[in-house]
Amino acid sequence: MSIIRFDENPLIVPGDVKPSRSDFEVVCAFNAGCIRFNDEILLLMRVAERPPIGPDYVIAPILHPEDPSQGIDLFRVDRSNPAFEEIDSRLFSYKGKTYLTSISHLRIARSRDGRNFIIDERPAIFPEMRDEEYGVEDPRITQLGDKYYINYTAVSGNGITTALAVTKDFVRFERRGVIFAPENRDVTIFPEKIGGRYVCYHRPVAKLIGGADIWLAGSPDLINWGNHQHVCGPRSGMWDEYKIGGGAVPIKTEKGWLEIYHG
Amino acid sequence: MSIIRFDENPLIVPGDVKPSRSDFEVVCAFNAGCIRFNDEILLLMRVAERPPIGPDYVIAPILHPEDPSQGIDLFRVDRSNPAFEEIDSRLFSYKGKTYLTSISHLRIARSRDGRNFIIDERPAIFPEMRDEEYGVEDPRITQLGDKYYINYTAVSGNGITTALAVTKDFVRFERRGVIFAPENRDVTIFPEKIGGRYVCYHRPVAKLIGGADIWLAGSPDLINWGNHQHVCGPRSGMWDEYKIGGGAVPIKTEKGWLEIYHG
Repeated sequence: MSIIRFDENPLIVPGDVKPSRSDFEVVCAFNAGCIRFNDEILLLMRVAERPPIGPDYVIAPILHPEDPSQGIDLFRVDRSNPAFEEIDSRLFSYKGKTYLTSISHLRIARSRDGRNFIIDERPAIFPEMRDEEYGVEDPRITQLGDKYYINYTAVSGNGITTALAVTKDFVRFERRGVIFAPENRDVTIFPEKIGGRYVCYHRPVAKLIGGADIWLAGSPDLINWGNHQHVCGPRSGMWDEYKIGGGAVPIKTEKGWLEIYHG
Repeated sequence: MSIIRFDENPLIVPGDVKPSRSDFEVVCAFNAGCIRFNDEILLLMRVAERPPIGPDYVIAPILHPEDPSQGIDLFRVDRSNPAFEEIDSRLFSYKGKTYLTSISHLRIARSRDGRNFIIDERPAIFPEMRDEEYGVEDPRITQLGDKYYINYTAVSGNGITTALAVTKDFVRFERRGVIFAPENRDVTIFPEKIGGRYVCYHRPVAKLIGGADIWLAGSPDLINWGNHQHVCGPRSGMWDEYKIGGGAVPIKTEKGWLEIYHG
């Protein structure tokens, strides 16, 4: 099997995506979930946006802390503030709490040929829950019957979780809540039941003991998950020596399930 | 409500507990789950043991890495080894992996009056699964009908998880697998269903964002858990400013559920 890169890569750049509000700029369009739906190929992209900042301060765009329904607040911190600490360009700490300098939502790009994409004007899934106050990221889409289950990373000051939404039409999305507690992302749900239960890979990250490894879990209903089992971890001295996580939804082959993961 | 400490505290000291093998010493007997069973009060204690060590080396007692059924291996590391790093008296790191210097099992102490306890000669739940290679710790016991559900911390090199066992008689214990992926401990399962589902508090600890906070989860079957919701976290400047976690199984009162937590 040979894989040839498209000459016209990248297919989509941040400048192609209209920001969700006029005072934001789109800084990333990436980590899309991908699915064939009717006669189109859909990318459900993570779109990261941020407001312009000056040299003397940073801004964390976050959902209004008391009332998420009021939308995004711009939380500004002066770099000269002694409680400010830069972690990297994407993260800073203020009074011991970690903040992100951008906020992500999920946006659909549509194509008939898999090469030329038209990007929706509006977000598909926009952060609105308290668990999403820092944004929604990195969706994967699993088709089960006539429903499409979208697991995505829901980030808040309380941690990085994985949440679930379901759609039949990619127009209306119904949230089903947080399915994996912090810290957990890179969930990939298998497209069929195995042994009578739903199955997924997930990637918890522990603080005290253990790495950024792939685990397996089972579920009777896609909402509640258990029977967690360690699958594999980073390999010392290899390209995946630091951390790994599920990428694509597992693909069934004659030889078993193929999981494409990132390292 | 006034609480009076027993004059005869501590009720049990490590020297009261017979080690599980003659070359081990019991270093801690603590963090017991507690339940009234028939006409006895049972403490299901965490008992931490270790082999004697010398000044020049440390030992991690762990289940045999290839075949856990072979029991506990003594993994010795010289302090002069450049890949050795002491974390504290309970933890060390070797070649980037974290190890414990003791291994815990669960042991029953029985009493008719809640003051005088007789300690079983043998462990009740002893580490034997791969997820338990560093030991089993910190049980809580929830009675549901005629069954007693015991959640406990299962520790391995892959992380700190919470596992579930069930018993009817406190003689035979049936394992039900890992119910919370790393890092998660301090699970307390409510002693009745709420809104048609089982409910528990749990305490995930994330690496990148978030603290050591208490979360709520629901379950249809005690095995699979979902709908994770953040409940509360440490309070800055207070006695519980560093980390918190559920302690006792929640107690139903006229004013609602009483949860005793530790900080």
